Amino acid sequence: MMGARVARLVVIGGGAAGMSAASAARRTDPGLDVVVCEAGGFAAYGMCGIPYYLGGTVPEPENLLAYPPSAFREKRGIDLRLHTRVTGIDPAARQVRLAAGTPAARAPSATRGEPLAYDALVVSTGADPVRPPMPGLDDRRVFTIRSLDEAIGLRRLLASGTVRRAVVVGAGYVGLETAEALVCAGVDVDVVEALPGVLGTVDEPVAALAQAEVERHVRLRLGARLEAVDRGSTPAGCLTAVVEGEEIPADLVVIAVGVRPATDLLIQAGARHLPDGSVVVDAGMRTSLPDVFAAGDAVALPHLVLGRPAWVPLGPAANKTGRVAGTVAAGGTASFRGVVGTAVVKVFGLEVARTGLGLAEAQAAGLDAVATDEVSRSRAKYYPGSSPLHVRLVHTREGRLLGGQLAGREGAAKRVDVLATALHAGFTVEDLAALDLSYAPPFAPVYDPVLAAAIKAARGLAAFTGGSP
Amino acid sequence: MMGARVARLVVIGGGAAGMSAASAARRTDPGLDVVVCEAGGFAAYGMCGIPYYLGGTVPEPENLLAYPPSAFREKRGIDLRLHTRVTGIDPAARQVRLAAGTPAARAPSATRGEPLAYDALVVSTGADPVRPPMPGLDDRRVFTIRSLDEAIGLRRLLASGTVRRAVVVGAGYVGLETAEALVCAGVDVDVVEALPGVLGTVDEPVAALAQAEVERHVRLRLGARLEAVDRGSTPAGCLTAVVEGEEIPADLVVIAVGVRPATDLLIQAGARHLPDGSVVVDAGMRTSLPDVFAAGDAVALPHLVLGRPAWVPLGPAANKTGRVAGTVAAGGTASFRGVVGTAVVKVFGLEVARTGLGLAEAQAAGLDAVATDEVSRSRAKYYPGSSPLHVRLVHTREGRLLGGQLAGREGAAKRVDVLATALHAGFTVEDLAALDLSYAPPFAPVYDPVLAAAIKAARGLAAFTGGSP
Repeated sequence: MMGARVARLVVIGGGAAGMSAASAARRTDPGLDVVVCEAGGFAAYGMCGIPYYLGGTVPEPENLLAYPPSAFREKRGIDLRLHTRVTGIDPAARQVRLAAGTPAARAPSATRGEPLAYDALVVSTGADPVRPPMPGLDDRRVFTIRSLDEAIGLRRLLASGTVRRAVVVGAGYVGLETAEALVCAGVDVDVVEALPGVLGTVDEPVAALAQAEVERHVRLRLGARLEAVDRGSTPAGCLTAVVEGEEIPADLVVIAVGVRPATDLLIQAGARHLPDGSVVVDAGMRTSLPDVFAAGDAVALPHLVLGRPAWVPLGPAANKTGRVAGTVAAGGTASFRGVVGTAVVKVFGLEVARTGLGLAEAQAAGLDAVATDEVSRSRAKYYPGSSPLHVRLVHTREGRLLGGQLAGREGAAKRVDVLATALHAGFTVEDLAALDLSYAPPFAPVYDPVLAAAIKAARGLAAFTGGSP
Repeated sequence: MMGARVARLVVIGGGAAGMSAASAARRTDPGLDVVVCEAGGFAAYGMCGIPYYLGGTVPEPENLLAYPPSAFREKRGIDLRLHTRVTGIDPAARQVRLAAGTPAARAPSATRGEPLAYDALVVSTGADPVRPPMPGLDDRRVFTIRSLDEAIGLRRLLASGTVRRAVVVGAGYVGLETAEALVCAGVDVDVVEALPGVLGTVDEPVAALAQAEVERHVRLRLGARLEAVDRGSTPAGCLTAVVEGEEIPADLVVIAVGVRPATDLLIQAGARHLPDGSVVVDAGMRTSLPDVFAAGDAVALPHLVLGRPAWVPLGPAANKTGRVAGTVAAGGTASFRGVVGTAVVKVFGLEVARTGLGLAEAQAAGLDAVATDEVSRSRAKYYPGSSPLHVRLVHTREGRLLGGQLAGREGAAKRVDVLATALHAGFTVEDLAALDLSYAPPFAPVYDPVLAAAIKAARGLAAFTGGSP
């Protein structure tokens, strides 16, 4: 044969990170053979939209897709194979093994149940929901919210009109967003959380605001652990969630107690990883295995405040690391600098945002950290719609900013980005207080809440050191 | 006499900057005698709230005051003298001269028409509206919007029911906010602007979006210069605004063609100033005159992108410089680092924001500047309320960020603060593209509009240099 062998990139996982990798690889090398193996029936959607589909805010599952599958196949020349599960990676042979027994292959280049060769591999298998080992979780009315396929099943159940009461286990981002979605869908909701507060990723004063908001809409049981789900005597009968001995009737149970890196394939193949199972990569998203890259919620990323890799599975970094992995795997140049752990969640009528380290996180990392809290307003006090905005800054006693958290009815979600930018820049609270931020009465007080908190923090430092403010 | 002479700080101007100075001085030295001379009848309010009072969004003028006058006198021990005009500064004698013929002095320490001695002086006389020299502007139905006293008169006229048509001259921030206020109050409005576009402080692509929004609500005449206001034959008759020979009938004319530093007192006393009349100060807000400080809209401030002092009269800097001037004048330590020119304005249903330099400004400053425009969305595309958001970045060909502008129905006002923070940090567009910004479907797409624009700009640089993205 005269023809040179066409190099092939295989991507495992067709989520946002995987499709970003495939698209970036295609842009980098238009001649590359790009194959994406996705175990589910959808590709190129993020987890973050699922609660809004569940609650009916988003009408159809297809609305959540960045592009329809046909766009990848026809417009970008990406061989996207849905319902295609990978069961193993053989880095020495440069091939992955596809699960047998799945529907017939769509592309002639590979058949299911057979090996698929690659020249470069991007693994973006994301994170799996944690399912605590306890009786009853195999009932078809017990859900985790991690795939669109599963969410379609859950919404169908909601549409059947048989769900009047639900128990949501877990009061983190996903648990609270799911609780809100169920309330939107007219369901009476109990939220059960083993920890003493909601939203473990924010500090107590901010979590308390979220808790008060949650309690306006659902029954919240804190410090309460799910022990079992009892399906009763008849299959159609009501479920019972057993929580600290108490029995809560439910037509539906959602388990949202966290996720773990879905890195079994990589770890079995020998990839270096952190104790939590997240896979270690370099700035080009290379794993320790030759020609194997990883991206998305499965990888540990440089945490720019901690100064070491950490597992912070969030959507924007998943997309960006996919783009970097695909570019580098296809022979291009790109690098990912790191994260500071910025996140925002809508908790019913409240915006709750965080970035960097919380106080306990900072102290656990050996930093001499303190926190400053200040309550300002989202707009000029006289302007209609102005509402309280809580800003918490975490910083060293010398003034280095380590993190920040905000909560309010409006204005928290994007103000946290100022703090995130300040963390990237290595700012002190004095630097923060000196920022020239925008002002007009409909949008902020003359001292933006971020400035007000920074000024208070800077004055506190002056008190520590005995200097003038 | 045995008693030591009590040091006195005099503040000229009781606006936000002046009252910030007085309060900061009081905090710094509780024993200081603090006197504020304010020519008008109100103190401690910002100009920025006036349009919302005019349009009825804010019911009473008192709503705009940070604190009532009595709070300064009784709670802070500040001798606030309203209706007290200063006519001269004598730095050699350390005294100011008060205008004669004003109401009797409220405090025994000084009588009107007599000198008032100071140990330190803070001048915060703000900016005066420009009144073009043309016939008819002395009519009582011709207004500028620069003091609350004047705004009360204007709102009283609106309440009389005699105003059906108004002409607003000038389509900058104040002109457009006033036009919106008048539309809110049920008035039919013509806006006349001599320049070819609205909002001269933003570049053409962003100004064009504002223009389209303005034209949905008022008749806008661009490139049209006011020549005269003709009051007709009877005093109660309709006014006529003469614009390029055309006669526009009006029951009210508002002149909003800009402001100039109100620094006559300082300049007459010999203070160093820029050609535009703004007064030069150091980081402690000291003027070139001994023991004379200046703060607020009258001063030139270090522009951190231009690297030289510039006159950018905006509310937050006015407040901060007041605080610094008062602290330093009272013997404390404080400094003001500078501005990047961040501003936001609500133009009917549109948010328009800017920071740093526009393209023409940057080129005029000798910088090899280019601009990158990207239109994204304010929320995830599938989330209700998501709307287009235009982001324009101005940067050097090597990638240094010089400025940014945003316009959209939502999400522009506080996103500009990320760009402002990046300017303070001296970021490149690659630095901007690497930021870990918050994401959740109700608040942003997974690539925030700021990131999307930065990624596009960074790719453009790669094209310039021939490198990979």
